[in-house]
Amino acid sequence: MRESASGGRRAQLHLPHRTVQTPVFMPVGTAGSVKAVPQDMLEALGAEIILGNTYHLYLRPGHEPIRRMGGLHRFISWPRAMLTDSGGFQVFSLSQLRKVTDDGVQFRSHLDGSSHFFTPEHSMDVQIALGADVAMSFDECTEYPADRARAEESLRLTMAWARRSLAHFRAHQHEVPWRDELDGRSQNLFGIVQGGMYTDLRRQCAERLVEMDFDGYAIGGLSVGEPRELTLEMIAEVLPLLPRDKPRYVMGVGYPDEIEQYARLGVDMMDCVLPTRAARHGLLFTSEGRVNIKNRKYAEDQNPPDPACDCSVCRRYSRAYLRHLMQAGEPLSATLNSIHNLAYYLGIMQRVRAQLAGP
Amino acid sequence: MRESASGGRRAQLHLPHRTVQTPVFMPVGTAGSVKAVPQDMLEALGAEIILGNTYHLYLRPGHEPIRRMGGLHRFISWPRAMLTDSGGFQVFSLSQLRKVTDDGVQFRSHLDGSSHFFTPEHSMDVQIALGADVAMSFDECTEYPADRARAEESLRLTMAWARRSLAHFRAHQHEVPWRDELDGRSQNLFGIVQGGMYTDLRRQCAERLVEMDFDGYAIGGLSVGEPRELTLEMIAEVLPLLPRDKPRYVMGVGYPDEIEQYARLGVDMMDCVLPTRAARHGLLFTSEGRVNIKNRKYAEDQNPPDPACDCSVCRRYSRAYLRHLMQAGEPLSATLNSIHNLAYYLGIMQRVRAQLAGP
Repeated sequence: MRESASGGRRAQLHLPHRTVQTPVFMPVGTAGSVKAVPQDMLEALGAEIILGNTYHLYLRPGHEPIRRMGGLHRFISWPRAMLTDSGGFQVFSLSQLRKVTDDGVQFRSHLDGSSHFFTPEHSMDVQIALGADVAMSFDECTEYPADRARAEESLRLTMAWARRSLAHFRAHQHEVPWRDELDGRSQNLFGIVQGGMYTDLRRQCAERLVEMDFDGYAIGGLSVGEPRELTLEMIAEVLPLLPRDKPRYVMGVGYPDEIEQYARLGVDMMDCVLPTRAARHGLLFTSEGRVNIKNRKYAEDQNPPDPACDCSVCRRYSRAYLRHLMQAGEPLSATLNSIHNLAYYLGIMQRVRAQLAGP
Repeated sequence: MRESASGGRRAQLHLPHRTVQTPVFMPVGTAGSVKAVPQDMLEALGAEIILGNTYHLYLRPGHEPIRRMGGLHRFISWPRAMLTDSGGFQVFSLSQLRKVTDDGVQFRSHLDGSSHFFTPEHSMDVQIALGADVAMSFDECTEYPADRARAEESLRLTMAWARRSLAHFRAHQHEVPWRDELDGRSQNLFGIVQGGMYTDLRRQCAERLVEMDFDGYAIGGLSVGEPRELTLEMIAEVLPLLPRDKPRYVMGVGYPDEIEQYARLGVDMMDCVLPTRAARHGLLFTSEGRVNIKNRKYAEDQNPPDPACDCSVCRRYSRAYLRHLMQAGEPLSATLNSIHNLAYYLGIMQRVRAQLAGP
């Protein structure tokens, strides 16, 4: 590992399916697919690790079928590294009729209204069946704004669930479907620092999680509507409390300038749906700023989407063509826009890594 | 050219942007995109010529913008051969409030209700602006069923329009946007044989078109709902009347066994939306027959979509994964299914060509 004065770290993360160069941006493949982008294109883009969402995959096609088929890597034919979230965030944001107790969360599927019960133990069982390289502790993502009493109560739950997640994970991690194939290498479990926007709660949470000795640490409950300075303040507060020799992951961020900024502060891993979601709505991130490709002014613009970009889309297609694909509702639009935006995000991290590696 | 006893021909079609191996299947790229399939994947599949639809491109983004941008090849970044239809078929099938006179067709756009007037001359102007390697004569596609009086009247119109199309095309074909770049090579215009399901009308039409001396000949007005034997009868009636040294194109067909059958009879070119449209609905064409990938029985089927297929989808993904992508409404589904179906169609033609080439 090589560390800069500002705390930025250039390192390698040795995961069962891939040694990942950090800091790294992880494209999100919610339901087992980074939306509209074929796996071979993700490889060509240099994506080393992608996300899968436990809540979605648990509901459809189900973790047991995926386990029987050898785990998520094999099911979606992705040989590089993967990370699954705990399902907690989606249970709280997507499902209906939630009932939270100390034991866990009762909820109804957003797909068919069927009733389900998630506990920390169950989240671990599901994530072990999926078999991503990194699993996440089951937590409650504190909403924003939350008053202190609410943030304290939420944190109490997250801490209790972290302990139970870790205990259950350690007792069952040998059950991962690919364990025998990968020379005994095993899944990793990360703890998640919550605490709302209260620095003392964040500190308290980080310290206790570090005592529990997770394989890595995430900072959750950010990018939930709070102002940007608050996001940065929470990250800056927590990072120094985390062990230097373990990966640090900020969940669900962010805009291009955010991921660059956090990487320079010492965040090793980030994920966000933004590059692919924005792409589907015609918003491209470029070296010249944001480009709304639907704009009429691009109708006959034969320049590449980003003249400074070397991705397969910018090398081949014009702004005029990408605009036309959106206007005509062509499905190719989502694919090409997503490839460019992912190239842009991955390119930022590549540049930051090169700079952190020093002269 | 090499011809078999049954009439099947193995030949090369020298077009401005590509020498195409025939018999050939042409994927359909209605609005300037073979739906959900990036151009580099089409190239990897071995597609040598694709279609664009004049009606769609005329309405959006418009033929003048495309002309100003150097023509359709450059606009969509497709360096190989292209063919545009005349717009006639879509004017009759998609537009609203049509009024047909000897002069042309008045219609309203299916997109915004705006009013347009298409004549044979205008269709030629639009197709020259688009600049495909092959343009098609403006015709009226006779509906099925049509009684004899109706078929005769429709044919009269098609013949008069063919004459006007050819005259206007010959007078303006030098205006194609890429002419200077391609060493003086020029667009081709094909005539279209109509005549409903009346063999004598078909014969009469073919003979007159041949006298006019088009660059190639299409058989249109088939696959419009008639029984398969009738399609075959019309093709068998017309083929012997067409000049041996010019390409023969049957428009809008068909199922895998149809394209194989017609190719063996001496049809050089075919196009159809079926492989890509069926793909988007989860219907895969395979060496084991049709596979409805949505079927529950594939939920844990880890075999490739077609065990005998060597395409990039069959080499990488399982039936279970393709089924999951459909179930989850993932856009990747359309891409992967379309790539396989196109590989299957192009593979049929490749096999037929190899057999026609002889031992």
